[in-house]
Amino acid sequence: MRAVIVETPGDVDALTIGEVETPRPGPGEVLVRTVASGVNRADVLQRQGHYPPPKGVTDIIGLEASGVVEEVGAAVTRWKKGDEVVALLAGGGYAEFFIAPEGQLVPPPPGVDLVSAAGVLEVAATVVSNLEVGRLSAGEVFLVHGGAGGIGTFATQYARALGATAVSTAGSLDKVRHSLEHGASFSFDYHGDWVAELKEATGGADVILDIIGAKYLELNVKALKPGGRLVIIGMQGGVKGTLNIGLLLSKQAMVTATSLRFKPLGAKAAICRRVEQEVWPMLGDGRIRLSPETRIPFDDVRRAHEQLVGGDNVGKIVLVH
Amino acid sequence: MRAVIVETPGDVDALTIGEVETPRPGPGEVLVRTVASGVNRADVLQRQGHYPPPKGVTDIIGLEASGVVEEVGAAVTRWKKGDEVVALLAGGGYAEFFIAPEGQLVPPPPGVDLVSAAGVLEVAATVVSNLEVGRLSAGEVFLVHGGAGGIGTFATQYARALGATAVSTAGSLDKVRHSLEHGASFSFDYHGDWVAELKEATGGADVILDIIGAKYLELNVKALKPGGRLVIIGMQGGVKGTLNIGLLLSKQAMVTATSLRFKPLGAKAAICRRVEQEVWPMLGDGRIRLSPETRIPFDDVRRAHEQLVGGDNVGKIVLVH
Repeated sequence: MRAVIVETPGDVDALTIGEVETPRPGPGEVLVRTVASGVNRADVLQRQGHYPPPKGVTDIIGLEASGVVEEVGAAVTRWKKGDEVVALLAGGGYAEFFIAPEGQLVPPPPGVDLVSAAGVLEVAATVVSNLEVGRLSAGEVFLVHGGAGGIGTFATQYARALGATAVSTAGSLDKVRHSLEHGASFSFDYHGDWVAELKEATGGADVILDIIGAKYLELNVKALKPGGRLVIIGMQGGVKGTLNIGLLLSKQAMVTATSLRFKPLGAKAAICRRVEQEVWPMLGDGRIRLSPETRIPFDDVRRAHEQLVGGDNVGKIVLVH
Repeated sequence: MRAVIVETPGDVDALTIGEVETPRPGPGEVLVRTVASGVNRADVLQRQGHYPPPKGVTDIIGLEASGVVEEVGAAVTRWKKGDEVVALLAGGGYAEFFIAPEGQLVPPPPGVDLVSAAGVLEVAATVVSNLEVGRLSAGEVFLVHGGAGGIGTFATQYARALGATAVSTAGSLDKVRHSLEHGASFSFDYHGDWVAELKEATGGADVILDIIGAKYLELNVKALKPGGRLVIIGMQGGVKGTLNIGLLLSKQAMVTATSLRFKPLGAKAAICRRVEQEVWPMLGDGRIRLSPETRIPFDDVRRAHEQLVGGDNVGKIVLVH
């Protein structure tokens, strides 16, 4: 089969398309013929050599993809050849075929075609699982950074659908507006004193979903309410930060860092079930609206990475096979 | 009534004994005539001005005390004049009488006299509530620093009684031996590479109860197993530490900081109930053994603080009225 190969980690030129052996499904696994592959920021890190796959996982890049079931393992009960599916993957999405454990496949959301669906599951699973880690509940204040990004746009709408007050930061007036149109009750320009503005508006945040890491660690702890929970899922602003333990203690607050990719299979299957049962209806009835994806041919994978890193792309990028 | 007064925060000379008005119990409160007052490290911080009481709480020092009920508020149902009680307090223990919410009083542990009982509840409540925060469960590895201290001696025995493997660090061979005799399966000298020794012995810790704070933050995160929980309850090693978010993320681990004193009344009452139901039987049947306390007359409160700060005292210090 055709797949994206990275011989030596590096810039976009490291991405080449070549022939590799088509994988075979194990007893609980499904072989899927790819229709489209979602492109994520983590893919760029993996291409650069900064985000190696978990042990035992293919080194082909790609954390989500959609397609049509080609073959099922002996122990698979839910799926059969010809079914349309969307997959949450630990790797392998940038290829003509991919393998997924049965529990990490879901049907596409209602009314969404397979190409668009390729860019939905990773974000949905990330947000759903991390707001569960943060125990966000109705009536609480939820803050996400990058309110106009993929995670931010989804998270503000989802938090609002849960009955929380959603708040975001964003880097421009356009992005602030985008966030306010997608579930946020307040959105603050992060070039300003967003901690002070947040405290003025809502008294602080009960749960923060953070993609910045080190650079925002002190600010995030300041922004938490008593009993607040900071859930870090990205480190765009560095790996080692300063933690004010005294402030954390006075608030009885919590900091945690999680990664969907490194969770065990059982946990991933539970998250996929929850996305299918809880989020797919929200996409169906419009409580969550996604920005239109950017479609790029599979052969132009280098351009897809360039466009993602450029930072001006709105909505997900998907590679069409 | 007679009480310890601190006019100006400072060294032990700041502690003087004077006359203040005897407090009156509110509807859900109990007035207790003090038999003995437990002395805690936090009392020293409060004397120095570093640990002010929560809003609405007396500025008389003292987080735990024992005594005999003198008068009960109209809404109190469990206690009557003459009952022997031990109290968990947000303040006020260093006085001839103290006030406690009904739910923060428990009977003394079976077979323990009221003087010894004055030094048990604060440690027990701290350990029980924080291992609940850390969700320690049977079969897991539990690490506490200062294995020969009040918290450490209690925590290793309690964790072992829960079915966990208890491990500690300590500062001398004598203290290592003390910890091994009080529930610890391993105890490491903290002058050595205790992280490496811990990993060698048990593969790391699922839950760490930490009184050091900043100085140990990076080491503690290193010492955690995947999914581990670091619960910080003290900052003897500083307030601002370096958090390696990348390492935390790769382990899906959690850092939290809590303080018993600042928890709401309902939470404190629940903790006291749990201590009475779960820990008192363990003291009764010897699963938890306490070091004999050091008894110092109430009038010698300055000497009590000197002895605590000196650091060579084994077991709790209690002030006898």
